[in-house]
Amino acid sequence: MNGVKIFLSLIVSVSILSAVESLQQRAFKQRLEPIPSDAKTLFSYINDANDPISDEKVELGKKLYFDPRISKSGLISCNTCHNLGMGGVDGVETSIGHKWTMNPNHLNAPTVYNSVFNRVQLWDGRISHLEIQAQAPIQSEAEMAASNELVVERITSIPEYVAEFKKAYGNDINITFEKIAGVIGVFERTLVTPSAYDDFLNGNEKALNKIQKEGFELFLEKGCTKCHYGIALGGTVQPFQVAAKYKFIEIGNFKGNENGMVKTPTLRNVAETYPYFHNGQVWSLKQAIVDMGSIQLGIKISNKEADSMVEFMQVLTGRKPAIIYPMLPRSTDKTPKPDMN
Amino acid sequence: MNGVKIFLSLIVSVSILSAVESLQQRAFKQRLEPIPSDAKTLFSYINDANDPISDEKVELGKKLYFDPRISKSGLISCNTCHNLGMGGVDGVETSIGHKWTMNPNHLNAPTVYNSVFNRVQLWDGRISHLEIQAQAPIQSEAEMAASNELVVERITSIPEYVAEFKKAYGNDINITFEKIAGVIGVFERTLVTPSAYDDFLNGNEKALNKIQKEGFELFLEKGCTKCHYGIALGGTVQPFQVAAKYKFIEIGNFKGNENGMVKTPTLRNVAETYPYFHNGQVWSLKQAIVDMGSIQLGIKISNKEADSMVEFMQVLTGRKPAIIYPMLPRSTDKTPKPDMN
Repeated sequence: MNGVKIFLSLIVSVSILSAVESLQQRAFKQRLEPIPSDAKTLFSYINDANDPISDEKVELGKKLYFDPRISKSGLISCNTCHNLGMGGVDGVETSIGHKWTMNPNHLNAPTVYNSVFNRVQLWDGRISHLEIQAQAPIQSEAEMAASNELVVERITSIPEYVAEFKKAYGNDINITFEKIAGVIGVFERTLVTPSAYDDFLNGNEKALNKIQKEGFELFLEKGCTKCHYGIALGGTVQPFQVAAKYKFIEIGNFKGNENGMVKTPTLRNVAETYPYFHNGQVWSLKQAIVDMGSIQLGIKISNKEADSMVEFMQVLTGRKPAIIYPMLPRSTDKTPKPDMN
Repeated sequence: MNGVKIFLSLIVSVSILSAVESLQQRAFKQRLEPIPSDAKTLFSYINDANDPISDEKVELGKKLYFDPRISKSGLISCNTCHNLGMGGVDGVETSIGHKWTMNPNHLNAPTVYNSVFNRVQLWDGRISHLEIQAQAPIQSEAEMAASNELVVERITSIPEYVAEFKKAYGNDINITFEKIAGVIGVFERTLVTPSAYDDFLNGNEKALNKIQKEGFELFLEKGCTKCHYGIALGGTVQPFQVAAKYKFIEIGNFKGNENGMVKTPTLRNVAETYPYFHNGQVWSLKQAIVDMGSIQLGIKISNKEADSMVEFMQVLTGRKPAIIYPMLPRSTDKTPKPDMN
């Protein structure tokens, strides 16, 4: 083959490629990204070099995640509002905390699953690290209502916990409030849920059926990926016009961050993370899709289109890691008692 | 050997036997009984011929046990007060229910572990079957506060639950409130925790160390087995003099059954099921032992004796079944919404 022929054959193959640009390729162009399909790459994505994941930390973090004694009452654990059996949420409009208190901003609990892929945490995105995020609900008066000192006293009064911290971090570990929340964050890093959507983006063309692919096309066409992009399909702060247009958003005083920006929730497991929006006022996924179209994108999403997009979103429901329910070490005479007030 | 010799040899062996009567033999005489060590016999103990245990029922019952949607608020599950990671209890004096309500009788949540071995359930012993017991906390205004109708509506609105009921009970199953509580009871039948104590009674002399055996001897000598007998080491109604003597028992209006009798709690896992007594007013196991001696038995248990008995009671902490945390089927548009009021 001479040079001209090679040149022409390259041109032809490029133009054929672009003519049949696949759904996968279009997704990548719009900044979508799958959860990696090989364990080593995935590990490098979720690991934090400053506090590397280890079996000992994950096991300890899991116990603390399920332990209600890190709340003032001894009744509320991380899992109460971020229930790993319910898509990582509580399924109520706004979480109920200490003394049956509703969140004063009427905020809905976001899912803990795949939160490691969020660039920022919390609805106003003010915290980026999971390890630091885990401190906030423990301290909040409307959530777990525990002081840093109480949490440290409770945990360090239990010899098995002290031993596990030493196993995880070495004998000279100082068990601070930050360390306790931190190891919960390490556990949370492992809560990733690959789904048929990832299989599809990783190359398995058959992972989605026809209607799911149509819904995916619409998802790309309509501009949803302006905010819902990356591995998390969300997890960055974005302008949030919902508040201005819909009265139901006026519940609570939440105004987003200092620029009125709000963290876009991940769409992973969205079929399970009802009710929707920051204040949980919309229970129907279809309605949420239509609202996002009209309010955020200024477009009309038809009934039929919304149905397709709902079908697409089913494939974002991921395979959950198997969790052996942890047996928690018992309290001792030194453990501060539960306080209901 | 002639008849006289045979007669004499028998006499001798009997007297030798009685001279060295083992701790195990003495325990059996006082109506103590181990959890059977072979699976087949154990299954025959925990099974109910009227609603035989099957894998499908246990899996479904486990899901419902962990599902907060059987409460009015959608926030309280069986596991909230009978936490399988905390010895089957909540570790607080008296359970907190719907709208942060304290139990009006100030009753402490008994452990769900080994409750299949109780002859009667609830503190006043008014119910004998686990399947029926499970109805009571769901309905109680101070606990889960759900009407029978609400529970049925919630569960039957979820296709996966309907399918699982059909798999467990056949296609013509009528999913009633009683059936929902019933299959939770089937799951609870499997929550048995054999321990070193059972290993010892089943013949392994080395399962207890010296101090634990001393404590066990004291347990038998002092008369604890008058009420704490059988496999459950409790679980029958007995006279309860605690109320008359100790002021702390006057909290709440609980008076026992119509004869003033109260269900003796199981001592299995007692080291984990603090705080103690029907109203959870005693946090120290040692103190509880001393109180039971003086109030119920009219004897003084010395400091040293109580220490030994505490050591014995550690061996009642059992091996818990491994529970894979269940992934719950999601609600549908037809599922009645959570109600916080």
